[in-house]
Order: sequence, then structure tokens, then C-alpha cells
Amino acid sequence: MTTRVFLTGATGFVGSHVARRLVQAGCQVSALVRPTADTTPIADLKDSLTLVEGDLRDGDALERSLVASDPTVCVHLAWYAAPKQYLHGLENLEAVAASATLLRALARTGCRRIVFVGSCAEYEPSAGCVDERSPVRPTTLYAACKQAVWLMVDQFARARGGTAVAARLFHVYGPREPVARLVPSVITALLAGRPCPLTRGDQMRDLLHVEDVAGAIWAVARSEIAGAVNIAAGMPVSIAEVAQEIGRQVGRPDLLELGRLPQGADDRRWLCATRGRLQTELEWKPRFTLPGGLAHTIEWWRTHIRHAGRVSPLST
Amino acid sequence: MTTRVFLTGATGFVGSHVARRLVQAGCQVSALVRPTADTTPIADLKDSLTLVEGDLRDGDALERSLVASDPTVCVHLAWYAAPKQYLHGLENLEAVAASATLLRALARTGCRRIVFVGSCAEYEPSAGCVDERSPVRPTTLYAACKQAVWLMVDQFARARGGTAVAARLFHVYGPREPVARLVPSVITALLAGRPCPLTRGDQMRDLLHVEDVAGAIWAVARSEIAGAVNIAAGMPVSIAEVAQEIGRQVGRPDLLELGRLPQGADDRRWLCATRGRLQTELEWKPRFTLPGGLAHTIEWWRTHIRHAGRVSPLST
Repeated sequence: MTTRVFLTGATGFVGSHVARRLVQAGCQVSALVRPTADTTPIADLKDSLTLVEGDLRDGDALERSLVASDPTVCVHLAWYAAPKQYLHGLENLEAVAASATLLRALARTGCRRIVFVGSCAEYEPSAGCVDERSPVRPTTLYAACKQAVWLMVDQFARARGGTAVAARLFHVYGPREPVARLVPSVITALLAGRPCPLTRGDQMRDLLHVEDVAGAIWAVARSEIAGAVNIAAGMPVSIAEVAQEIGRQVGRPDLLELGRLPQGADDRRWLCATRGRLQTELEWKPRFTLPGGLAHTIEWWRTHIRHAGRVSPLST
Repeated sequence: MTTRVFLTGATGFVGSHVARRLVQAGCQVSALVRPTADTTPIADLKDSLTLVEGDLRDGDALERSLVASDPTVCVHLAWYAAPKQYLHGLENLEAVAASATLLRALARTGCRRIVFVGSCAEYEPSAGCVDERSPVRPTTLYAACKQAVWLMVDQFARARGGTAVAARLFHVYGPREPVARLVPSVITALLAGRPCPLTRGDQMRDLLHVEDVAGAIWAVARSEIAGAVNIAAGMPVSIAEVAQEIGRQVGRPDLLELGRLPQGADDRRWLCATRGRLQTELEWKPRFTLPGGLAHTIEWWRTHIRHAGRVSPLST
């Protein structure tokens, strides 16, 4: 039986890769996109999926689209994602309202499985390396709103005899990552021969290439697993090591200025995952190693930078 | 300094009593009411508070009303409350979206304190007698949505340098309680001389008269307490005892048919509170004893029942 997926957030960084992975897997994909959205990231897929023009704030139109596409699975990725501002922006509240509207529209369909994309930021800050049984305690509006939607999604699905997953993303990197974020800012600085000021870099993180993230989300969606699932490699690495690996590969480790910037207030020392349900229950394995994934990403940036230090608008 | 309160849900069962208590306390109250709402429950207050016609779904109008009323405290009570259906109705999702809209509008004001009215249903079902440190784990859409809004409210207030309270209601009874609920259904049956079929009645609950609930909410709102506060007497009583006390007072204990109805699936054995922060930190005391509160409620129903067994529409 063909899996019919209703996907939100398909034009975003992670969403565009998820859309591609779902199409590759043979799913029938309906991707909700705002009329004003830049669909360049999924332009190559335009003959392989259905673009549904709409808005998560318009419940009636959403309901019609959902009934028409009659999904077996809903993958809900759309969220406010402006780098840095996303942790505290009031747009997070809008994302909650939009998610509530999505669920009410989903109630009109036979969809019995929902994959909601959450975040490692939902875990208790002092927790260190977490697994899915680790305590959840949001300390930002972003994390609170992600957790809020998960609570709704979970009970909504249960009440309808369905299942839901909170796919909690850790640090995602790869092609099309917004350039203000860590990996692309280091890569683009070094490729341009610019000095790259950084914090001390002893924050421990879990990095996964975005194509592996997309693969993991599909693995989760197609399975019958329910509850929280960490989308993570299960292997802590320091920010300094990541920067140094990029430095090595680009051949400009001399440009890295570790310790130049102060740590941010929201910058947890640890935000890592141990091997979790993705590994133990689904036996999922990433395709990329960290050096391999960074090499792939550096290559993508090389071909997408028109001028030294200048990023093409299409790539962000 | 006058406390300026923006109140949602003022025409509801609990809300109408909260509105009255705030007015008595000398607050300047702006009560948001839908244009279609029946304002009878607060008709006596019409010269003492400002009725703000509006809807939590209309963010722009809400913002204008909030800016105009410039509240120092927001007491957010509006919710979907249809007896029995409220636990699973999709209207709970709408209440979340409405609450997100309220917060975004509040961001335009200088309001630094929010009292959000939550529920004992948010606590872990196996918990028995709970206090505010007891684990929270929603198992219904209603409880999930209440918890979802609390997560948003708490982080929203913190991010603005303010404080928020989750006032978690336990079993509230008293004048204007919807007649389908336990206490009024027993009272009205017995007053009408009708047999009153009940479950075994060994469910343990915490009962508080609605005027005491309103008093407690005001005590919480005026204080600087933050986080969850149980609005409860801190004294467990069985449903059978409550029914028998009503039977004794009405003089018709013979009409009580305890054990006639099966227990409901959502009917937890224990949903009680120990003495909590209301008692230990705010030293708050209820005005009514349980027999006194039931006597007051029975008296109210006597004067509001036009015909035996027939409840005036004004009273529900």
C-alpha cells in the first residue's frame, strides 16, 4: 500500500530534505506550502509531489486540502526557525496555534499516524547526555511551545486510536542550513579566507547530517514506534572538534579563533544523546560519518558561493 | 495602586464568581466576553466592571482591547467546559490556539503577571493525593491542552521578566454549576423527589465551594507566588459522603442509589490534594466547610428551580 504523507514545512532546511527522502521512498507526498514561500529548495521535486498551497492559520482551507489528500501519515515540521531569535520569538506561539489548527483539520481525515518534529531543547538543561526517558523541562519559549504541541499531538492521536511520534532533532547540519548557524558560518568564513571568531567550543553536541535526519524521520514514520524518539547519532562531539575538522578539510585551521567569543546564555555545556530508540528499536544507522558529512557540506558550499564570502540567496 | 485585571471566561461558572470577587476586592476589571455570550451570571456587576466585547480568536481586536485596558494582571479562565465532553473534545485544541493568541496580544502590554487556570487532571493518574511537586502527565486531550498552555504561559512570563501561576482547580461546586455535574445533579434530583442513581461513590475528591475558589484565585493573583498552585481544600472526601451529606440536608437520603451506575473509564479512584502552597505559603483558608458549602448550594438551587426537577435556564 502506498504511504500517503501530508508534509508541513517542506520548503525549510530540514523539510526540503525530508520531502526528497519521502519521494525517493515512493511515498505519495502532499506538501503544504504558503503561497509566498520560496519553493526553490524543492524545485527538483515538483513533478514528484503535490504542492498544496495553503496556510496553517486557515483551518477551513486546510481541512479541504487534508480531506483531498487523505494522508496515512502526517509529518509536521513547519515551525518558526529564524536563527538565534527562534528561542524567544513570539512566533513560537503562532506555531502552537497553527499546530492546533492542523490537528483539528486532521480530525476530518482517516490519518492515524503523526510524526511531530520536536527538539533536544525540550530536555532538562542539566541532563547532559539524554535518552528518551530523560526528564523534559522547557526553559525557553521555543522549547515550551515544542513540548506543548507534542502533548496535544500525543493525546489527539491516542484518542483516535492512532499513534504519534515526537522526533526530537539534535544538531542538524548540511546543505541549505541557514548561513548564520555554526557549521555554515565556519565553512563560509574559511572558504572566504576570513578569520572565524568562535567561543571556547567546549559545548558538547550531537551532530547529524540533514540527509541522515531525513532518513531517520522516514524510518520513524514508516515504523510503528510511538512516543519520543531522539533523531541523533548518539555520539557527543565538541564544537571545537567540529570547527577544527572543517579547518583541516578546508586547509585553513589558522583562521579559527577559538575562545574569542563569550559563551551565550542559552549555550548549554551538554546537549547530547546516548544511543537511543532509533538505534536500539529501529536499528537505524546514519549514512554519513561526521568527517564525511562535513566534506559533503563543504563541497556543497563551494559550489554555492558565487564570490568569496558571498552566499547566493538561493542557498540559504 | 489599583490592580487592573484582564479576565477571560467571566461568564462561566467559575469565572462569574472570580469576576465578583475581583470587583469586591476593589480591582479595576476588564472582562472579555464574546458578543454572543449570555452575560446573566455577571449582570449584577455591569456597573462595576468593564465588559470588553471580543473573541480570543481575533488577535488584532484583542490586542487593541488589551492595550486599552492596560492590565497589571491577566486571569485566563476561558476554556471549553461542556460537562462530560470536555475531556476529549477537539474544542480543547481551539482553546490552546486562543490562549496563544491571548499571549501574543499580552506582549503588547505592560502586564507582568498571569494567572492561568489549570486542572488537577494534569497530574499523573496514579498519583493519589497530590501536591504541586507531584508529577504531571496528561492522559486526556483536555489535560494535555491545559498543560500545553501552562508551558507557554510560564515561559512567556519569564521571558518578559514577569511571573505566572498555574492555578490548578480540583472539584469545584456551588451556585451556577452546570446541572449535569455531580453536586447539582444530586441536589436537583433530591429536591424534585426523583431517585438518584450513582456509582459506588468510592472515588476520593477534593471539593471546594466556588466562592472559595474565586477567593483563592484572587489570593494567588495578588501575591507574588509563581508556578503551580493547587486550588483545593486539602481534605479528601468520597463522592458517596458528598451524596449522603446532600441526602441528609435535603431530608431524602432514601433516593440515593449508590452502586447503581458503573464507574466511568476516566473516573480516577483518587484525585485529591494534600495541603499545598495555598495553605503553606499563602496561609489561605476557605470560608465554607463542606456541609456549610453544600447547604449554601442547596439553598441556591431551591430558589432557582421553578418547577420540581426543572432548572431555570438562567441558572446553568
